[in-house]
Amino acid sequence: MPTVADLLEPLRRGEARALGRAISWMENGHPGARELMAQLWPHLGRAAVIGITGSPGAGKSTLTDRLARVLLAEGQKVGILAVDPTSPFSGGAILGDRIRMQRIAAEPGIFIRSMATRGALGGLARATQDAIDLLDAAGFDTVIVETVGVGQDEVDVVSCVQTCCVVLVPGMGDEIQAIKAGIMEVADLFIINKADREGADQVEREVEAMKSLAMPQGWDPPVLRTMAQQGEGIPELLAKFREHGVWLREHGGLARKARERARLRFDSLLAEAAVRRVRAQAGPERLEAALQGIADRSLDPYSAVAGILGEV
Amino acid sequence: MPTVADLLEPLRRGEARALGRAISWMENGHPGARELMAQLWPHLGRAAVIGITGSPGAGKSTLTDRLARVLLAEGQKVGILAVDPTSPFSGGAILGDRIRMQRIAAEPGIFIRSMATRGALGGLARATQDAIDLLDAAGFDTVIVETVGVGQDEVDVVSCVQTCCVVLVPGMGDEIQAIKAGIMEVADLFIINKADREGADQVEREVEAMKSLAMPQGWDPPVLRTMAQQGEGIPELLAKFREHGVWLREHGGLARKARERARLRFDSLLAEAAVRRVRAQAGPERLEAALQGIADRSLDPYSAVAGILGEV
Repeated sequence: MPTVADLLEPLRRGEARALGRAISWMENGHPGARELMAQLWPHLGRAAVIGITGSPGAGKSTLTDRLARVLLAEGQKVGILAVDPTSPFSGGAILGDRIRMQRIAAEPGIFIRSMATRGALGGLARATQDAIDLLDAAGFDTVIVETVGVGQDEVDVVSCVQTCCVVLVPGMGDEIQAIKAGIMEVADLFIINKADREGADQVEREVEAMKSLAMPQGWDPPVLRTMAQQGEGIPELLAKFREHGVWLREHGGLARKARERARLRFDSLLAEAAVRRVRAQAGPERLEAALQGIADRSLDPYSAVAGILGEV
Repeated sequence: MPTVADLLEPLRRGEARALGRAISWMENGHPGARELMAQLWPHLGRAAVIGITGSPGAGKSTLTDRLARVLLAEGQKVGILAVDPTSPFSGGAILGDRIRMQRIAAEPGIFIRSMATRGALGGLARATQDAIDLLDAAGFDTVIVETVGVGQDEVDVVSCVQTCCVVLVPGMGDEIQAIKAGIMEVADLFIINKADREGADQVEREVEAMKSLAMPQGWDPPVLRTMAQQGEGIPELLAKFREHGVWLREHGGLARKARERARLRFDSLLAEAAVRRVRAQAGPERLEAALQGIADRSLDPYSAVAGILGEV
């Protein structure tokens, strides 16, 4: 097993193996996670981070690919984090493998990782944030975070990246569009992908209508059209992403986002640590007895928890 | 403000106002939540609970409606919990309201509630479980839990209901189908909705292929076809739901599900309580200082949390 010292240098050089290992440490709450993050902490804050979120079928993976290729061509190192149960990277073994083939994989300058920490309490958003920092420390210029944007974890993930892009697509019906309601407020850019499809004008009208209802916050999220499959609109997307970055820097937005990110991680890590402590103090027998009591209906869960906390 | 004693009787009689209030107590961690649940605990375990999960646009809301109508016609009282950011009940104000009109609403014998506890740590699945219990205690015969089935919370919600139905739909593409990968393992029934659309046979073949790869677990999840809009296939769905209920009772499945449910709630409530305690012990000043240190990069989040826990 490598130590923190073993990981530190290869990680800072951007070696994929060290990066993969370090991300796993963060996901699993490895004892070395804290020391590693403390060592890397002074080296962070250089990478640009873009979030791509949208419904299944909206073309997020293709957009991510195309964006990554343009950045690669500029000589950048690009990290991709797929926080998405529908993503080819993290998706089901059966259908996922078939699709994965089509995507950019082990090209030099690219690091791809799927984030899927089932069962970690609030840990997905926190672990993704950790992974962004690790990629940053490893010298990646841009990190693209791809997520389906449904569920609190997913919203948390993209709500605190530098620029959050919401991908919409024409003709997917009211229900598909309604999915965006929770994420409208965190959108910095709207992308209408598959823009050659019928209904693109209508989607744009709906987005503009929603925007007009929102409170003005200084930055007016632009609505872009792309055809990711054909590569159209990607340079424009990149330009807007950079424009937004400049705007953030000039208007104190980076500090605000840093604070949101800090809160997300602190709350999540504090929760994880608090639970670990209480469970350790209670011990497995008491925890098991409480669980059994709830299951056989001799004890209600609220009283069970109050009992455990009263005793430790 | 009502007391536990004020709520108890109207709630047991199934009054919507008392139910709504009690569910809010559970969502918000109201001080009366524990006492109320303790009082109701002996009266639980009678309601049948069905989960309906699937992608946006799969027709979950329509299926839920139709199912509820059939049960109503049998003289049942039906509770519907919409745990779904795309649901007309919980969805965005703009598009949501338009769709909501079309759905069964305040019919006698129906109680509908959207569950959306943003920011509650792991609280959504737990609060939904509490709401199921409240409906159970209030004399509802069947509770239908509708969720988009993406994200850990949503999977947690349906993974421990009595019968979990996964709704698929023809022709929504590989990516849409891949969404199901995470939820395949918890499916008790597969429903191919909009079965008159082209591609129904292919979806069925894909489901059968996935099933053949899964470990046999005694219950072989059937694949049903419905056209919810036209009401077709709903009686068959109901029959399979009941068949599964009988199977669970005869094969110890109810005890297993009760244990999963107990674990979900216990873990979640313990986490909520542990975090409340640590935060209270640390005090707002110390928490704020840690947060500020992370945001301005003078302190890494792991060390910040270790510091707080070391002091309290």
